[in-house]
Amino acid sequence: MSSIDWDLVDFVVECGAESTADVNDARALPPQCYTSHSFFEFEKRALFDHEWLCVGRADLIPNPGDYLTITINEDPLLVVHGLDGHIRVMTAVCQHRAHLLAEVPGHTDRLFRCPLHFWSYDTEGRVVNATGMKKARNFDKSDYCLPQLKVEVWEGFIFVNLSDSPTLLDKWFAPLAEKFSHWNLPILRSAKRIDYNVQANWKLIFENYSECYHCPGVHPALSKLSPYDSAENDLIEGPFLGGFMSITKGNSLTTSGKSCALSVGDFGDEDFHRVFYYSIFPNMLLSLHPDYSMVHQLRPLSPDRTLILCDWCFNPEAFEQEDFKPDDAIEFWDMTNKQDWHVCELSQQGIASRAYKPGPYSPRESIPAAWDRYYLRFIN
Amino acid sequence: MSSIDWDLVDFVVECGAESTADVNDARALPPQCYTSHSFFEFEKRALFDHEWLCVGRADLIPNPGDYLTITINEDPLLVVHGLDGHIRVMTAVCQHRAHLLAEVPGHTDRLFRCPLHFWSYDTEGRVVNATGMKKARNFDKSDYCLPQLKVEVWEGFIFVNLSDSPTLLDKWFAPLAEKFSHWNLPILRSAKRIDYNVQANWKLIFENYSECYHCPGVHPALSKLSPYDSAENDLIEGPFLGGFMSITKGNSLTTSGKSCALSVGDFGDEDFHRVFYYSIFPNMLLSLHPDYSMVHQLRPLSPDRTLILCDWCFNPEAFEQEDFKPDDAIEFWDMTNKQDWHVCELSQQGIASRAYKPGPYSPRESIPAAWDRYYLRFIN
Amino acid sequence: MSSIDWDLVDFVVECGAESTADVNDARALPPQCYTSHSFFEFEKRALFDHEWLCVGRADLIPNPGDYLTITINEDPLLVVHGLDGHIRVMTAVCQHRAHLLAEVPGHTDRLFRCPLHFWSYDTEGRVVNATGMKKARNFDKSDYCLPQLKVEVWEGFIFVNLSDSPTLLDKWFAPLAEKFSHWNLPILRSAKRIDYNVQANWKLIFENYSECYHCPGVHPALSKLSPYDSAENDLIEGPFLGGFMSITKGNSLTTSGKSCALSVGDFGDEDFHRVFYYSIFPNMLLSLHPDYSMVHQLRPLSPDRTLILCDWCFNPEAFEQEDFKPDDAIEFWDMTNKQDWHVCELSQQGIASRAYKPGPYSPRESIPAAWDRYYLRFIN
Repeated sequence: MSSIDWDLVDFVVECGAESTADVNDARALPPQCYTSHSFFEFEKRALFDHEWLCVGRADLIPNPGDYLTITINEDPLLVVHGLDGHIRVMTAVCQHRAHLLAEVPGHTDRLFRCPLHFWSYDTEGRVVNATGMKKARNFDKSDYCLPQLKVEVWEGFIFVNLSDSPTLLDKWFAPLAEKFSHWNLPILRSAKRIDYNVQANWKLIFENYSECYHCPGVHPALSKLSPYDSAENDLIEGPFLGGFMSITKGNSLTTSGKSCALSVGDFGDEDFHRVFYYSIFPNMLLSLHPDYSMVHQLRPLSPDRTLILCDWCFNPEAFEQEDFKPDDAIEFWDMTNKQDWHVCELSQQGIASRAYKPGPYSPRESIPAAWDRYYLRFIN
Repeated sequence: MSSIDWDLVDFVVECGAESTADVNDARALPPQCYTSHSFFEFEKRALFDHEWLCVGRADLIPNPGDYLTITINEDPLLVVHGLDGHIRVMTAVCQHRAHLLAEVPGHTDRLFRCPLHFWSYDTEGRVVNATGMKKARNFDKSDYCLPQLKVEVWEGFIFVNLSDSPTLLDKWFAPLAEKFSHWNLPILRSAKRIDYNVQANWKLIFENYSECYHCPGVHPALSKLSPYDSAENDLIEGPFLGGFMSITKGNSLTTSGKSCALSVGDFGDEDFHRVFYYSIFPNMLLSLHPDYSMVHQLRPLSPDRTLILCDWCFNPEAFEQEDFKPDDAIEFWDMTNKQDWHVCELSQQGIASRAYKPGPYSPRESIPAAWDRYYLRFIN
Repeated sequence: MSSIDWDLVDFVVECGAESTADVNDARALPPQCYTSHSFFEFEKRALFDHEWLCVGRADLIPNPGDYLTITINEDPLLVVHGLDGHIRVMTAVCQHRAHLLAEVPGHTDRLFRCPLHFWSYDTEGRVVNATGMKKARNFDKSDYCLPQLKVEVWEGFIFVNLSDSPTLLDKWFAPLAEKFSHWNLPILRSAKRIDYNVQANWKLIFENYSECYHCPGVHPALSKLSPYDSAENDLIEGPFLGGFMSITKGNSLTTSGKSCALSVGDFGDEDFHRVFYYSIFPNMLLSLHPDYSMVHQLRPLSPDRTLILCDWCFNPEAFEQEDFKPDDAIEFWDMTNKQDWHVCELSQQGIASRAYKPGPYSPRESIPAAWDRYYLRFIN
């Protein structure tokens, strides 16, 4: 829609640099980067077109022929578990008349067949049958493969990159190598996904996730089970930020306050009383509990609208057990999520006001301030 | 809303010219002309402001005093069967305070009276009573006639032209003179109109209508009654395009597969087994069956939104007969229409994707390719 | 959203000046000033940011600690009756993370406490508690008072001004000094408020209010009780315009046609048969009846959308009396209001048509013409 206003971009970068220059005296990002359509266009091109984006768990397409349909940065895409065993991400747009090859996730035994004129593609994106093109001159079906995007799997999650020459995923995630191995993320199974359409800028979701200073006011139930001031952060600069908070002994972060599932890994006694919260730039939040993992994917839709997909993942063996109560965790966090989205929406309204000037960060907000610093360095 | 981006217009014209230069090797139009708000503004001004547009059947206003209310290119208009017997199209906006003179179709015995201050106009658009203006200085009610547009009737359909000096309608339609006389279009009567609000660019509707290569996949019922590869086109270049397809012997294009009404004309045996499809640039589709005619009017609302009015017209004598089953044809095509609108909507989504590049036309898509050529020549 | 198109502003000012130059031969304002988003941006900055705006009756916050929540020109504001007895208007946006301090009107015994991180402010807008900021360097809570706006009370109504150095309210309202003293406006009490979301430009609401030439067509019930041609205006130029109309003897402007409440003041016999209508530039309409006062506040939301808040105010002693029938007046004007909003909405549609040219004002529309003149002088 909007074209990019480069003067605004420069203004945001400069003001932002000034606001965040002194780690101990930081203020929030300029309001325009939360509200401007033009700036949002810039973010899409400068940031989301170049970064590794989480698009879901690999266990959603466990078998060859399984596929997902997703829309990233307005582009409809297929995430395909190929018949050759490889995962690929390719456009969902037929190269003939632009019809979508699939509208919902599913499984194919052999081909994607466009319902419009029956052009068909194999699971590697090659044209198998270009119906009606036999007598076309100069037509070579190898010219019409479905354009593909870079894709990698990390810790059981599929990541896509819209750039032609992205940073290697392993290099990008090197700082996290082995860090999450206790939680067995690659083998967990999602019991539930809830999608939230939140009327707030995607950056507010990150900033809100990154501090528990708001917990006493916003999350009374959570605060009872996990002291708001118990955070100890071990990642404090860069694209990956976070650390752990305590869970009161004998409790779990569930509605009943009790553990709801077989542990996801083998922990020392200490980790049974801790929940780890990490933000993965630019679209993933990872919450690691002893008895489940919760994962948020963020899909920015407009400056003031973000689609958030939340998965609750459990030990696959837990599903077989009688005392498996996934709803105990899901209900608890669905409530807590909604509390967060509501305050993000009201902050979005306040940021849009002309009376708003970027406010100061408190020492308890060192992680959101670090997130802002990384974001600014990134877009600069 | 948007202003016109002339660089984009030039780009579309140039790319389009290149895509369509070789009749045997054509590709689709540039995606921007299906998605850009600015380009849509250009089309409204450069095309819809200058062409003859079908606005409905004359049999909707059979008697002096009858009138229609329509909105063309955002302008609210009255289509009036004047008390003097002439059909006129004039603005529906009172020249005093801009209130609408009528909101819905109706009949007037004498005047259009504005409900706001009771200014009134005769059916020829002249001010009869300018209430409250008696003591106004320099006021001459002849200065405030309702602005009128050019209007003509062709084959029983009312056409309006928003330009001051349009091509004469007879000259425009000269290539079609006598062509449809067998079908008695001027005397048919509409049994039903259905309005569809389709989330696709108006040009996709034309392109889709112009080929039956998609019929096996999209219209299984239609394909049973009319072989998808039976098309023989007799108008293959210019603003009017199309030809006929076969209907299997003993059948009609209805839900039951049987004829639903008295024939609309006197045909040779051959034409009883044919359906003729013609597109009339830039807003009409004419489908001529032995037992009815179906007519689509297109009203572009935005780059990705088109209002489509579909009429089913029958021999006026058919209405008196016991075996008259108009619903048999209406249900059949309402289903078939919706199949077409759905694929147009999914193509619209695909065209909006950055992964889309104009795809190749197959030899079976010679008519949509010809439509594109004419369109490009027109806007150039 | 839109930026300001200064060429358009100049065009409107020039065309408007020409249209309204001759008092006896005026035409309406250029259509763009009713429809353009860019022009609406200009109005917000050039007009609504500088004028005294009515935001409600002081009797809505009678006690210290009472407060209103309103949004003016997209800024969420608190209207606070301070614990020190003064009325203030301040931003509703917490100076820390921009969360709204209140979403609905209410009462506080001591503080506004932000629900997000528990920062709190006293009713004078000073930070009392900046939770979590103790260890922040260079933090001085006196730097984070809630920004305040100019506020004054006139005739019992609260007025706010978004400018730093507005005209003094007393000077602005000097032409009306003592004019309304008979009606005891400061002590009246509102029995009911109805909010209307009208799809028309705010100026159309003013122009419509300023003439009764439309009453026979639009308000048959009103016209029976108050002859449409009985207007005698005493304010005919400037920001305050209007006069009185007759009420037929023995009647009141109510559904029953009878008086519905104790008189609001001590009138001479003449004023018992008169209703006074005044428009107060740029967002207030004041309708003074013998037995009640009706007050409209206009809040422009977009070029074609206006929020209108309507209050019905009565003698506070009337509320105690058995024959007090406020609904008799409320129902009557709710119906009459809706009749006005409907014609404004249809005029808005007509003005948006390309066929519309600013129409002539009749001598019966001298007040809307004067309103236009003042408006143009103001924005010039």
